[in-house]
Amino acid sequence: MKVGIVGGGAIGLLFAYYIQRAGHAVTVYTRTKEQAAYIQRNGITCIRGEREHTAFPRAVVWGLQIPQDDYLLVAVKQYDIPAVIRHLSDAKSRLVFLQNGMSHVELMQQLRQPAAVGIVEHGAKREGPGTVRHTGPGLTRLGIVSGEAAAFADAEGLFHMESFPFVEENDWQGVLQGKLIVNVCINPLTALYRVSNGALLQNPHLQSAMRQVFLEAAHVLGMEDKEHWERVCHVCEKTAANTSSMLADLQAGRETEIDAIVGYLLGESEKSGKAAPLLSFLYQSVKGLQG
Amino acid sequence: MKVGIVGGGAIGLLFAYYIQRAGHAVTVYTRTKEQAAYIQRNGITCIRGEREHTAFPRAVVWGLQIPQDDYLLVAVKQYDIPAVIRHLSDAKSRLVFLQNGMSHVELMQQLRQPAAVGIVEHGAKREGPGTVRHTGPGLTRLGIVSGEAAAFADAEGLFHMESFPFVEENDWQGVLQGKLIVNVCINPLTALYRVSNGALLQNPHLQSAMRQVFLEAAHVLGMEDKEHWERVCHVCEKTAANTSSMLADLQAGRETEIDAIVGYLLGESEKSGKAAPLLSFLYQSVKGLQG
Repeated sequence: MKVGIVGGGAIGLLFAYYIQRAGHAVTVYTRTKEQAAYIQRNGITCIRGEREHTAFPRAVVWGLQIPQDDYLLVAVKQYDIPAVIRHLSDAKSRLVFLQNGMSHVELMQQLRQPAAVGIVEHGAKREGPGTVRHTGPGLTRLGIVSGEAAAFADAEGLFHMESFPFVEENDWQGVLQGKLIVNVCINPLTALYRVSNGALLQNPHLQSAMRQVFLEAAHVLGMEDKEHWERVCHVCEKTAANTSSMLADLQAGRETEIDAIVGYLLGESEKSGKAAPLLSFLYQSVKGLQG
Repeated sequence: MKVGIVGGGAIGLLFAYYIQRAGHAVTVYTRTKEQAAYIQRNGITCIRGEREHTAFPRAVVWGLQIPQDDYLLVAVKQYDIPAVIRHLSDAKSRLVFLQNGMSHVELMQQLRQPAAVGIVEHGAKREGPGTVRHTGPGLTRLGIVSGEAAAFADAEGLFHMESFPFVEENDWQGVLQGKLIVNVCINPLTALYRVSNGALLQNPHLQSAMRQVFLEAAHVLGMEDKEHWERVCHVCEKTAANTSSMLADLQAGRETEIDAIVGYLLGESEKSGKAAPLLSFLYQSVKGLQG
């Protein structure tokens, strides 16, 4: 099977490595010709614990030609999705979007091609143009967003490996919302306060501020159950020493995913007419700080 | 006339210097015996532009004996006022509180002694234990909070100097509220964002966040007029390069005046039943960050 992976970040490299190892003909589509040349020459090395292996997929720059792949797995940042989609109009590939946000779901529903989300529960860290560290082995949940279910009937079986599992997820919307509410609690606040994830739990004042954000977001999403708040706290605890991706982006002077996370919720709050003063304040604050 | 000044910060030193120069017998009450000894030996030097003068008031540590002054001017941080008041119960002095917040006004109304606010519109910077720079000459507005008006009838005339004017202010509550709303817009946000005052005006996203805070605070205070927002912007512009006192406190690991500013407004919002989600969020955030 021909499988294209769009994006050479941590998730793109991770999927390209494992799917190539599963026996498919993988093409990695990169943004820069330097990274494509590097992968062509050196392959993709995946480090997992003490072990280190290299796979040799093809690599080319994205956007030069219409992809001929049976599947295209899109692993770019949420805000780059519209640019990727513009090059897809003539492609016949089935599409899998690997972002954990929700702001692209509406876009997906307008595509001609069958489209699914792949909810990624792996931890991965890019350590070079062709090197990825698989820090937290997990799984990928496949959820069909548009098109015939039959279009993805073989996907789970095709990609699944014991060391890199794929499972079907019928309640993909519930899973994405659960992830969204964790992101909306942790990401903007750690970015604003410049603290690691654990501080939001350990400092009672910051926890109280996070609780306020949670209640507003949960109200917008209609997810006011106790279990969701417990999951937010659990993730803070489990990732206590981590720098959130939004704080890392802010510190590196990169664009953050504030639009995909808080911007999406603001859109929902407008649709439903539910007030969201804190989310609006956080949105403007992070937008302002990313300069 | 015997005049005591409680507090050896910038405002305390400034008032002690000028009132001693006006011919009164000034005692400065300091927190540390080192500062009292320093002032006893070297006096208080006030720098204003190119000119520099020294006055020689008496200086002692606060709290050792009941003050015998005719007037006591209290120039401590808002959060130290309760501790100062505890030592005042037997004093017969008329009291003038030089803080620009509002959270102590209720306390003042419970005092036995006649009490006034002195709204300070001078800029001053402490440059040593006995040195103050008078950076922005302005004036002091005297407003009687409790007790007979007659008790303060002579105050304006007693303290007034051409270079250090005192004026009577009947609408002291309106003036303090105007200052409060400026403080509540500028102080917590500059502290949270770690930016100088001007950034709140120059960055359109941060300005929009400040506008949200303004609207909520103005609603709580019933001050929704256009002129108040214009004044907030004007102060941001005039003090664009300045580090706000709350940001400076946070950076130095000192306690901030968040209780006197945002805490006061939260109290008002509870009394009136007006919701204040952003003020509550800012309160918890700054409390959390000051550790």
